[in-house]
Amino acid sequence: MEKSVKIRVPATSANCGPGFDCLGVACTMYNELSLTLKKEPGVEIQVEGEGAENIPTDERNLAWRSIQMLLRRVKADDTFRGAFIRMKNGVPLSRGLGSSAAAIVGALKAANVALGNPYDRRGLLQIATDLEGHPDNVAPAIYGGFTVSLVQDGVPESFSFLPRISLKMIVAIPDFPLSTKAARDALPANVPMKDAVFNVGRAAMLVGALAKGNEMFLRHAFEDALHQPYRAKLIPGMYEVFDAAREAGALGAAMSGAGPCIIAYATEHAEAIGDAMVETFRRHEVEARAVVLGVEERGAYIVKE
Amino acid sequence: MEKSVKIRVPATSANCGPGFDCLGVACTMYNELSLTLKKEPGVEIQVEGEGAENIPTDERNLAWRSIQMLLRRVKADDTFRGAFIRMKNGVPLSRGLGSSAAAIVGALKAANVALGNPYDRRGLLQIATDLEGHPDNVAPAIYGGFTVSLVQDGVPESFSFLPRISLKMIVAIPDFPLSTKAARDALPANVPMKDAVFNVGRAAMLVGALAKGNEMFLRHAFEDALHQPYRAKLIPGMYEVFDAAREAGALGAAMSGAGPCIIAYATEHAEAIGDAMVETFRRHEVEARAVVLGVEERGAYIVKE
Repeated sequence: MEKSVKIRVPATSANCGPGFDCLGVACTMYNELSLTLKKEPGVEIQVEGEGAENIPTDERNLAWRSIQMLLRRVKADDTFRGAFIRMKNGVPLSRGLGSSAAAIVGALKAANVALGNPYDRRGLLQIATDLEGHPDNVAPAIYGGFTVSLVQDGVPESFSFLPRISLKMIVAIPDFPLSTKAARDALPANVPMKDAVFNVGRAAMLVGALAKGNEMFLRHAFEDALHQPYRAKLIPGMYEVFDAAREAGALGAAMSGAGPCIIAYATEHAEAIGDAMVETFRRHEVEARAVVLGVEERGAYIVKE
Repeated sequence: MEKSVKIRVPATSANCGPGFDCLGVACTMYNELSLTLKKEPGVEIQVEGEGAENIPTDERNLAWRSIQMLLRRVKADDTFRGAFIRMKNGVPLSRGLGSSAAAIVGALKAANVALGNPYDRRGLLQIATDLEGHPDNVAPAIYGGFTVSLVQDGVPESFSFLPRISLKMIVAIPDFPLSTKAARDALPANVPMKDAVFNVGRAAMLVGALAKGNEMFLRHAFEDALHQPYRAKLIPGMYEVFDAAREAGALGAAMSGAGPCIIAYATEHAEAIGDAMVETFRRHEVEARAVVLGVEERGAYIVKE
């Protein structure tokens, strides 16, 4: 009965240039979460790696709260009242790489497997969206690949697809966190129609060119007019980092989620692009490191059951 | 030297639901244009079919103006100073089915072929966009299939793709024209951010689901919040016609271009959908007819050289 389940769950990047509040992508950077459900009350949580010193290990813990929600929904919260949770985190916190989505999805997937899979991925998407507030990061964490998500009458719908080009994502990770709330508060309630049209066209072109594997149409497809202009002030040197990435060979660059990470998309020259981004951040007095990631194709998966 | 070229060019529908000002599709409804370039000055123009009584047959004629622009760009306007043009039009005028784009593209393609193809399709797209003012209809008329178009620094870029599902387009054609200018004037300069996000997500999902052939994700993908709400007053019963089409089995429905045509998208029940649309228009005292079209895959092509 005290079966342990171990899940690997990817980092995710939301917005992806023009895809504000709808596009997401899963990246080859991971958290691992091991779960043992227990009949007796009480939770024990061990955290290693990214954010170990900041993640609460009591009832406030997001993974545990996610597990409890799933237990309640399948009415197993009387059967399993406690748990042992071990997290090994590779995804940095509050950087725009979906660390909370990774915690939620890793935990839900682990609990779901431990209970004999009462939910399919669509069911997990609903619970994860209810917990996170939006599907932008949890969808790629569940499905892998790129995802287009929308919410209709409270029900999330996510279409996932794999790009038909070999895409590298070069992530510049600054050494300061940025709260999603601060980034949200920077946005206006109304925007020029021409900016809306700008993003509609580029998001459509981005998805079409990725899905069909047409690299030449990605050249302008990562640009955004809806959210980045308002948030640029929160990330010193943001547009200069975009330019440096393109000059070093990237197809385009964009904020990852609500930042402060910046992702450049490329098919080649990944290292040079990372160096150029870090160097440009440095000239704006921001310490950053660069990592080169691929598209994680599977989404959260079982490592050990 | 007095070679005659005959071109078939498809009707096109712009906007396609959420794809305001960027998405377009070529339809299996056609104009035919025959061109004989002449050394002596003077143009003779014959028009049959749709709009025959309204299309000028003198120097104001759009097809002839298009041909003259191409002749000037290749510096052949001294060699060929006149032409004989015959148009057989199947595309109704001022209904939102790209009749002016068909005239422009048919004429440019004919002149290009007559001159030994100085331009490729990208070159024709630039001239056609210069003439039409935007690439939304000329792009699918040139390339066929669905197109995602944007303009960057005056240069149009159009990505075309074929849907991987067998899509029918049921077009309800009201018996009144609507000027694109009136439809443009109905639009606000600013829109709510949430409406911009609504369209970005649906346009991305529409393109992804069409490109990958995923019919189930098309269910909400034809909805729009950016232009139709402001233009609904110009088309009596518009939203009721959308609803009637969906109830009869359509995946979704939308204005074609700036209207007044309404297009329903479906994989089956095409006739019943058309009947329901016409009947609903009638209840709003609009006489309309319905035609069932497919996606034209080729774009403008040579019938006879």
